[in-house]
Amino acid sequence: MKTPGFNDVAKAQELISPYVHRTPVLTSRSIDRITGGTLLFKCENFQKVGAFKFRGAANAVFTLSEEDARRGVATHSSGNHAAALALAARMRGVPAYIVMPRNAPEIKKRAVAGYGGNITFCEPTLEARERTLAQMVEKTGAAEIHPYDNFLVIAGQGTAAKELIEDRGVFDLILAPVGGGGLLSGTALSTRHLLPGCRVIGAEPAGADDASRSFKSKTLIPQESPSTIADGLLTSLGKRNFAVILDKVDDIVTVSEKSIVEAMRLVWERMKIIIEPSSAVPLGAILEGKVDVAGKKAGIILSGGNLDLGNLPFLNLES
Amino acid sequence: MKTPGFNDVAKAQELISPYVHRTPVLTSRSIDRITGGTLLFKCENFQKVGAFKFRGAANAVFTLSEEDARRGVATHSSGNHAAALALAARMRGVPAYIVMPRNAPEIKKRAVAGYGGNITFCEPTLEARERTLAQMVEKTGAAEIHPYDNFLVIAGQGTAAKELIEDRGVFDLILAPVGGGGLLSGTALSTRHLLPGCRVIGAEPAGADDASRSFKSKTLIPQESPSTIADGLLTSLGKRNFAVILDKVDDIVTVSEKSIVEAMRLVWERMKIIIEPSSAVPLGAILEGKVDVAGKKAGIILSGGNLDLGNLPFLNLES
Repeated sequence: MKTPGFNDVAKAQELISPYVHRTPVLTSRSIDRITGGTLLFKCENFQKVGAFKFRGAANAVFTLSEEDARRGVATHSSGNHAAALALAARMRGVPAYIVMPRNAPEIKKRAVAGYGGNITFCEPTLEARERTLAQMVEKTGAAEIHPYDNFLVIAGQGTAAKELIEDRGVFDLILAPVGGGGLLSGTALSTRHLLPGCRVIGAEPAGADDASRSFKSKTLIPQESPSTIADGLLTSLGKRNFAVILDKVDDIVTVSEKSIVEAMRLVWERMKIIIEPSSAVPLGAILEGKVDVAGKKAGIILSGGNLDLGNLPFLNLES
Repeated sequence: MKTPGFNDVAKAQELISPYVHRTPVLTSRSIDRITGGTLLFKCENFQKVGAFKFRGAANAVFTLSEEDARRGVATHSSGNHAAALALAARMRGVPAYIVMPRNAPEIKKRAVAGYGGNITFCEPTLEARERTLAQMVEKTGAAEIHPYDNFLVIAGQGTAAKELIEDRGVFDLILAPVGGGGLLSGTALSTRHLLPGCRVIGAEPAGADDASRSFKSKTLIPQESPSTIADGLLTSLGKRNFAVILDKVDDIVTVSEKSIVEAMRLVWERMKIIIEPSSAVPLGAILEGKVDVAGKKAGIILSGGNLDLGNLPFLNLES
């Protein structure tokens, strides 16, 4: 099993920079006052398709040979990776075959269709998704691009932290949410190389804590029946991601649902930007006291901004 | 009655630039695709206190003589102007006396208190607000700063359009929402001077259309029983604002509640930024076909981003 290194992130950056947004880094004096730290937020919610996922997908799609690319790319995903892969494929002018569970959120279905993805719906089980995808790959010869357990995807995701460090210099710590581990492993590759003294911390919902348990036991433990509003972080850690994380991440902390919603609301209210619940997990960890940023300069990767606006968690918590 | 000119906007910019954010200008390919134009959004939702109002308040507060400033400033406001004046006064180290109706939104009360404003609550009638303010001014000798019908406030609000034009060059048209007319009159001062060929258009909720009726009849008609979710636009046009608007604005269009909500949701979903309903009125006018931007470069002032997140209009419209 080959895992990428920093050079692969640098190569990814060269390849994808014409296609991705170099997203802004925002700060908030009032959130700094609340946390006691100096927080710099890398805004991947402003990335194409509204999430960092476009970086990895673009790297995977544009690395394919002409011949392979012509047969297209395929994945199963109910989330941002599907939209990201569809758009990257459209930019290269090749087909994207996306297997989605029937019960995927409407906003995600519309997004994938809007980017020209060729959608096949299936039953909402992992077994059905994998079987349908295998049939699709068999039929079309498309290259399967896993959402996170993929060499090129990890390298692509690492470009967000690389940009953050290039733009804002030295950090004491950098935090990213962890689900499958694509973003956290890529973040660790860039940070460990560029800033050897900077801590890299993953933040995970307590209701989907396989990465934390795997990290502590040094054994990959799959996620079973996760429960969290951070719907981008429901999946199990990937093998390649786990290998990089074990090697290069300093800690993985878990965060309550209450802190995730509180952090999300704080960012919406104070920074006036839309982030999805998964993006709020690292700030949730800080608010909950799991990560101390007092007097420190901390980078936070805001992973994305896609959510159904008709279905906000604020109302339920307030009533 | 003295009204400001472009020189007063330029002077305001010099005075307040150390205190205000030079807010970013954002674009959205998907909103351009929907509208057929090239739209540039001046993001005053990222301004201090979350609204353009800070510009005018800062200009008024920092223009006061040392002696006048020491006695403080005062206003009655249930909205962004109260927070803006409180913060500007705190920055100058002088007291701000804010009269607020008891039923003002919690988020606004907290904001004003958070900026160190000295709040006096009163009954939610214009008469009670004016009487309480007069008592306060009598008692303290504070300078009353009207939210919009004020020479220095108008000049300060004009700095947003001035920055937009400085940063992004020539426009075919520039749109701003209109309530009391502070933002629209200031926008007109800057645009008419810097870009004589650019149209300046005000956008107003159909449910609070005094500015449109006043503009068409060339007579100031006060607003009676307004009804709109654009809660920053409920007030009647001010006298000074009306004079500038009659002289320098090309048109005022009215917008339905449905279009306002649709525009607000579009900005939230596609641009991933939080704007308040008042900010969405110009884009609503475009979506509704009241203003044609096809093939044109249009500037839109997004006036602010303050709203109670527990009380969103999306849910009601969707159910």
